[in-house]
Amino acid sequence: MTGLFERHQVTLQAALDAAAKRDYWSAYPEVPSGKIYGETARDDGLATYEARLGKSFDLPGHPAESSVGAEVSPYGPSLGITYPAASVDMLVAASRVAARQWGSATPEVRTGICLEILARLNARSFEMANAVMHTTGQAFAMAFQAGGPHAQDRGLEAVAYAYAEMSRTPTEAIWTKPQGKSEPIILEKHWRIMPRGVALVIGCNTFPTWNSYPGLFASLATGNTIIVKPHPAAILPLAITVEVIRQVLMEEGFAADTVLLAADATGSEITKNLVQHPSISIIDYTGSNSFGSWVRANARDADVYTEEAGVNSIVIGATDNFAGMCSNIAFSLALYSGQMCTAPQNIFVPQDGIGTDEGHKSFDEVAAGIAAAVDELLADPARAAGVCGAIANPATLARIATARSLGRIVRDSAPVEGLSQARTATPLILAVEANEESYAEERFGPITFIVAVDDVTDGVNRAAELAERKGAITAALYETGEARILAAADRFAAAGVNLSVNLTGGIYVNQSAAFSDFHVTGANPAGNASLTDTAFVANRFRVVMWRRPIAA
Amino acid sequence: MTGLFERHQVTLQAALDAAAKRDYWSAYPEVPSGKIYGETARDDGLATYEARLGKSFDLPGHPAESSVGAEVSPYGPSLGITYPAASVDMLVAASRVAARQWGSATPEVRTGICLEILARLNARSFEMANAVMHTTGQAFAMAFQAGGPHAQDRGLEAVAYAYAEMSRTPTEAIWTKPQGKSEPIILEKHWRIMPRGVALVIGCNTFPTWNSYPGLFASLATGNTIIVKPHPAAILPLAITVEVIRQVLMEEGFAADTVLLAADATGSEITKNLVQHPSISIIDYTGSNSFGSWVRANARDADVYTEEAGVNSIVIGATDNFAGMCSNIAFSLALYSGQMCTAPQNIFVPQDGIGTDEGHKSFDEVAAGIAAAVDELLADPARAAGVCGAIANPATLARIATARSLGRIVRDSAPVEGLSQARTATPLILAVEANEESYAEERFGPITFIVAVDDVTDGVNRAAELAERKGAITAALYETGEARILAAADRFAAAGVNLSVNLTGGIYVNQSAAFSDFHVTGANPAGNASLTDTAFVANRFRVVMWRRPIAA
Repeated sequence: MTGLFERHQVTLQAALDAAAKRDYWSAYPEVPSGKIYGETARDDGLATYEARLGKSFDLPGHPAESSVGAEVSPYGPSLGITYPAASVDMLVAASRVAARQWGSATPEVRTGICLEILARLNARSFEMANAVMHTTGQAFAMAFQAGGPHAQDRGLEAVAYAYAEMSRTPTEAIWTKPQGKSEPIILEKHWRIMPRGVALVIGCNTFPTWNSYPGLFASLATGNTIIVKPHPAAILPLAITVEVIRQVLMEEGFAADTVLLAADATGSEITKNLVQHPSISIIDYTGSNSFGSWVRANARDADVYTEEAGVNSIVIGATDNFAGMCSNIAFSLALYSGQMCTAPQNIFVPQDGIGTDEGHKSFDEVAAGIAAAVDELLADPARAAGVCGAIANPATLARIATARSLGRIVRDSAPVEGLSQARTATPLILAVEANEESYAEERFGPITFIVAVDDVTDGVNRAAELAERKGAITAALYETGEARILAAADRFAAAGVNLSVNLTGGIYVNQSAAFSDFHVTGANPAGNASLTDTAFVANRFRVVMWRRPIAA
Repeated sequence: MTGLFERHQVTLQAALDAAAKRDYWSAYPEVPSGKIYGETARDDGLATYEARLGKSFDLPGHPAESSVGAEVSPYGPSLGITYPAASVDMLVAASRVAARQWGSATPEVRTGICLEILARLNARSFEMANAVMHTTGQAFAMAFQAGGPHAQDRGLEAVAYAYAEMSRTPTEAIWTKPQGKSEPIILEKHWRIMPRGVALVIGCNTFPTWNSYPGLFASLATGNTIIVKPHPAAILPLAITVEVIRQVLMEEGFAADTVLLAADATGSEITKNLVQHPSISIIDYTGSNSFGSWVRANARDADVYTEEAGVNSIVIGATDNFAGMCSNIAFSLALYSGQMCTAPQNIFVPQDGIGTDEGHKSFDEVAAGIAAAVDELLADPARAAGVCGAIANPATLARIATARSLGRIVRDSAPVEGLSQARTATPLILAVEANEESYAEERFGPITFIVAVDDVTDGVNRAAELAERKGAITAALYETGEARILAAADRFAAAGVNLSVNLTGGIYVNQSAAFSDFHVTGANPAGNASLTDTAFVANRFRVVMWRRPIAA
């Protein structure tokens, strides 16, 4: 039926190799360059995005009873796009109708189609960048990377893992059991991959594609039909994704309804009804701990994969590059105004200060150094806009306002100059004592606590205990003593947190690279699964056999 | 610390190869022969078993507050063995104390220890055979095979899958990201396997070792500590298992409490409290659907792997070996008096009969042929005892009595001659119409319904629908038309049932071979997991990383 598997086999094999070696590798260039994507790609992507504004988003053949859509760009304008909307029962029924055909396709056919979808999405990365920028508030360059190639890489990674698991068991074998001096018993056996059913993917506001693609592509490759439930404030990136998927499915002779969009409106979300529907077999969820906890508790027999939230920490014990440390931390705090699940919130610093290449630095000097580095990073308004982007959710501004009273202000938050129509905020940095509880809650957005601790060991223990209690996706350590580094690696591993040590150059604790870094461990309350490992894909299908005797 | 991994590496590699190829392979000889196990092994095993009777079972250092034990052999005598018993909190606390050391061992050390445990268990297969025989009612030969080598093979299979997954990600890698004309960014990355926590293994009465070893060894190899909760009527086989495990752990310098026995008494079971304990991270359960459903609903954030029950079917459309078919089915019905989760309950036969090598056979002739084959199989009392064994649970006899009124009796159940002290029952075979509901429930034990259907397609559809509603672990088909065979394979695959076609020789639908047959699919209500595939092991651990820059 298709030659797509053969067409993309080199990419698939490279992805499998990269995932096994875990060296750097990427299938989709992260540089938004005309030389790579075509000289007119940037303008074309913008034009395609703008042509969608103020119109209904057409998904031919998609079930619909009404339309919804009220997205407003964090940069100011309303998008004015409406999407087809259908009841949960209508969506599930349509998904089930599509299930048999898709489930009967071979793993190779499905994998080939997934790879073609990813290639098409890659070609539309500039359009996607605009869609992500104006739904999440990410600056354009980040929206391009995180919403485009990096998300596609994460999708490819999931497809590769899924294909590896689906092909681990042979499709047939001859089983020959010796019977002493008698003739052996010989059976022919046949195995096939059976999907689980209807998979639900619940997207988030800040990374609608990056966080959704792993679950979406893992479930799709393994033969499940998919209902994509975007956050009401970030529908467009996933609507474009669903549009591309449905186009490829139809071209290859499959039902478009194999993948559906479950658009809804703030205040009348259909998410809970989807989660509790008895036909839903798999749920991928990205979002808050509170709703994640509800999903885990209320899903029926569906397998649930969550990325929730946590309280990420940096612990500073010593550094041989004080300036590099401060500027590295500053970038991690300011990038997308701290609205990344990987952004640090707490910085544990010994109350008596630290040793550095610039001599001893007191607690206040360390705090001041980080604050100064943020100021320097954001001194140029254009650069500030490019780093911070805009604030996705108005509640984050309110949270910053409230947070100001939670400690001594080391650096105040302020709007980003030159983005007057946008909702923006630079990092708020507060100094607190270790015995305060203010820093022990996730405070999503550009809110940082510098916490005075006894020493680096105290900091590591507090950070790790917080991770065990509240979850954490990342941790960072600055330390020069190898024994203390290894001890911290042990402690954070026990807390299920991935740790970055002594980052001072152009790599940041926030960054998680497909094919090398597993994103989230699943080993603390920040999420129950990892993107993407074998555990993330192996339960999305079952293996069923038939066997019969054959003559010796 | 140990050379056990190296000592058993050949076995491990052979197991990995076998699981990949799925041809016949076994590590532990299934023949209870003195030539293999030692000339005195049979007598020694019996003597060791008998020496345990009427005494307290000593597990040195095991937590205990009291003792329990009231096992009665289905063959008559009370065992009179008591076991150390402790509260749930005491068991969980002891397990947690042992956790850090065991979780810190390398996958190779843990895998080597698991392989050594299996080798020691293999050497004690005769002792285990007696223990299994007198707790489950299995005849000696079956108790030896299913309780010993076959269970050990299933344990080895789980260890092999676990090791494969733990070693899939490298322990370290260098990540080099090009930066155009600038120096690349280079990070060293380190990964480690982190266990999930305390794993609970809930055993069943009929196959205490075979059904428990996969979960036990999968969780143990991946670094979790284990609490083994045996059925109160079948403690001894798992107590011996725990004894062997604790001995090896201690010899290798690990805490014996890494694996604990949670013995309890009928009527005051501690299972529910264990399931709901917040420290339990993994639960493996074998047993009824009703309690399985409770476990799945009431486990907290623990991952739950279940083998529950189902209604297994045989569908007869045609055969070119009527005598072989009847005798094959007869053995499947009589083996261990139908007390296998894989035993068929329903036989769907076209009401107008079937074509055979002996000419057309009416519905009644097919039913009579099967009944006669059962009679012939059980004509010799010694052979009948060896095939049927004894009835594990008195409730099964009551169930047979009740079932007699559910249809027309084709063959009545009767005690097995020559086992006068034992609780025994040969197969009851009833004929019913397709529209009756009597056969649509699991009726555990030697109860068979021969159901009159329109034709083979009707039979396949009814059997598959029943599997989808009530679960099924096995299905069998007798058919000569290739198109109908392939259609049935499709239909049973959709219902998540493994299918055996045209078995007439010395291989039976009840039998599931390690390294080749996945036991249970996880794709219908008979269980949510398969023994053993990647999905069974991949979630029993997490992967955690630390990374840092290194100079170019």
